[in-house]
Amino acid sequence: MPVTRQITLASRPIGLPTDENFTIKEVEVGEVAPGQVGVELVHISVDPYLRGRMNDAKSYVPPFSVGGPIQSGAIARVVSSRAEGIEEGDLLTGIFDWQESQVVNPAGYRKLDATGISPTAYLGILGMPGLTAYAGLFYIADAKEGETIFVSGAAGAVGSAVGQMAKIKGLTVIGSAGGPQKVSRLIELGFDKALDYRGGDIKAQLMDAAPDGIDIYFDNVGGDHLIAALEASNDFARFALCGSISEYNLTERSQGAWNLFRAVQRRIKLQGFIVTDFMDRSRGFYEEVVPWIQEGKLKFDETVVKGFENTPSAFLGLFSGSNTGKMIVTL
Amino acid sequence: MPVTRQITLASRPIGLPTDENFTIKEVEVGEVAPGQVGVELVHISVDPYLRGRMNDAKSYVPPFSVGGPIQSGAIARVVSSRAEGIEEGDLLTGIFDWQESQVVNPAGYRKLDATGISPTAYLGILGMPGLTAYAGLFYIADAKEGETIFVSGAAGAVGSAVGQMAKIKGLTVIGSAGGPQKVSRLIELGFDKALDYRGGDIKAQLMDAAPDGIDIYFDNVGGDHLIAALEASNDFARFALCGSISEYNLTERSQGAWNLFRAVQRRIKLQGFIVTDFMDRSRGFYEEVVPWIQEGKLKFDETVVKGFENTPSAFLGLFSGSNTGKMIVTL
Repeated sequence: MPVTRQITLASRPIGLPTDENFTIKEVEVGEVAPGQVGVELVHISVDPYLRGRMNDAKSYVPPFSVGGPIQSGAIARVVSSRAEGIEEGDLLTGIFDWQESQVVNPAGYRKLDATGISPTAYLGILGMPGLTAYAGLFYIADAKEGETIFVSGAAGAVGSAVGQMAKIKGLTVIGSAGGPQKVSRLIELGFDKALDYRGGDIKAQLMDAAPDGIDIYFDNVGGDHLIAALEASNDFARFALCGSISEYNLTERSQGAWNLFRAVQRRIKLQGFIVTDFMDRSRGFYEEVVPWIQEGKLKFDETVVKGFENTPSAFLGLFSGSNTGKMIVTL
Repeated sequence: MPVTRQITLASRPIGLPTDENFTIKEVEVGEVAPGQVGVELVHISVDPYLRGRMNDAKSYVPPFSVGGPIQSGAIARVVSSRAEGIEEGDLLTGIFDWQESQVVNPAGYRKLDATGISPTAYLGILGMPGLTAYAGLFYIADAKEGETIFVSGAAGAVGSAVGQMAKIKGLTVIGSAGGPQKVSRLIELGFDKALDYRGGDIKAQLMDAAPDGIDIYFDNVGGDHLIAALEASNDFARFALCGSISEYNLTERSQGAWNLFRAVQRRIKLQGFIVTDFMDRSRGFYEEVVPWIQEGKLKFDETVVKGFENTPSAFLGLFSGSNTGKMIVTL
């Protein structure tokens, strides 16, 4: 049987993951049985949430096994098909093993449509990050024209979508990101204000940028950003809690939101959410978002790393902020 | 003009208030003008939220002035009336100065009905604490039959109402309180389980008491109780954030909810609320709750302190847990 390369979890990371937590090994590719297809990965999505699956902890997705393959969103090209309606050359998107060649049942995947939009968009703005942005903004935070939103991690795949969608809907948008290049990019994308969290205390910067307070906070970062947002919030603010990238690799407890009592004083609603709970609403999402992309109203940045073997380092780069927009590995 | 006694804020407390933050002084009582009534206080409610008004900080209610009277919910008897529809001997409830005799415009007050229920109930179970419990439970946390709720500060005026109302509606109720007497009282009131937070780590106790997790947390305490509830919560749990008595007197930052990321993993909604936002729904509250009291389904404990001059020490007692149920000063 033919062999292919697979990236496995060699050991569970403690704190910030390193290259040593990953191994590349050769594995056999199985036969394509009736109803199955053989595929080759074309693009792999690396996302912060994968860090959680590397811990041996109960969570909303089961942990990866040590010695087993990492899995994430990806786009694969069909190279042989024994499944009805799928042909060689078709592109499938969904959750794949980090393995160059593999055999899958196409029922668990979506065949890409001919929208004229780049296939990698389905890993970002039209994939989980885009739906995450849309669901958090409109289903969780109930964003309305005229309101002010603060989004952290705003140069990332989710954050940049949140900010632009909010602008399209008539909100005032403040974003935070790390470093002057990302901050400039946010302004190019139409953000009203962009804060460099590396350039000073984020709370002081936010209070200054939002003298009339914020109505919505879209949290990708946690920690000091969440504390700052609690301080800057208006009465009846809504916080869409999406991620806490500042905390994923902590080996000690974070300081924690010491000012959560603001939620009582100001009647703030903080609501955690996970994109998979909104999959049944993805049709409405596509109908609204695809035209925004086709009309050029909604842009998406990508940071592309070349080569399957570089997938772990692309993933690690998420935690040092080496990406602007969606981080993708192209094989 | 006649004189009367008034209790004023002598200085702003730093940390836990002491007797020295209060002064009793004699003040003149004004004339009763047309449309006004002269009243004498009968019962004064002391409540944890008053602590916040003693700070010089913007909040949902303005701070007390140093040298000015403290104000809180109270019941007063009309001793002279120049207002239509109000007669000598009527009982009024609302926010009064801490002053034995005073002149007020009755438009800002509610005349007590003849329900056969003790007047002090209008400071507790039928007053702000009762409406707070009801609104948090049903409007914020959307409590449903068959669910499990954890309520902290459960022997207090709000907490004991929350637990009993939840039992009436068919929930499983776990409460926490300080000391064996209060814990026994919770069981008498029908709570399924009662935890003594002085008797050990509250997180460990809660995980043990709720092996299947909690669906609702009604927070009166903050701090370690909130952290425990985040750990014990089920997916889609709702947290009604009502108060943080463990934090009101801190002079340093609390540790904070270091595990707030659970809100994302478990899609928890945490919502702060203030009873005054629900005043327009108090009719529905009375209609449902008055019969519960008349039928003996809903009990309310009171800790009564005698003497106007003891009002500050009754207030201070709230922070050492010297009350079971509603703390009231009777003149």
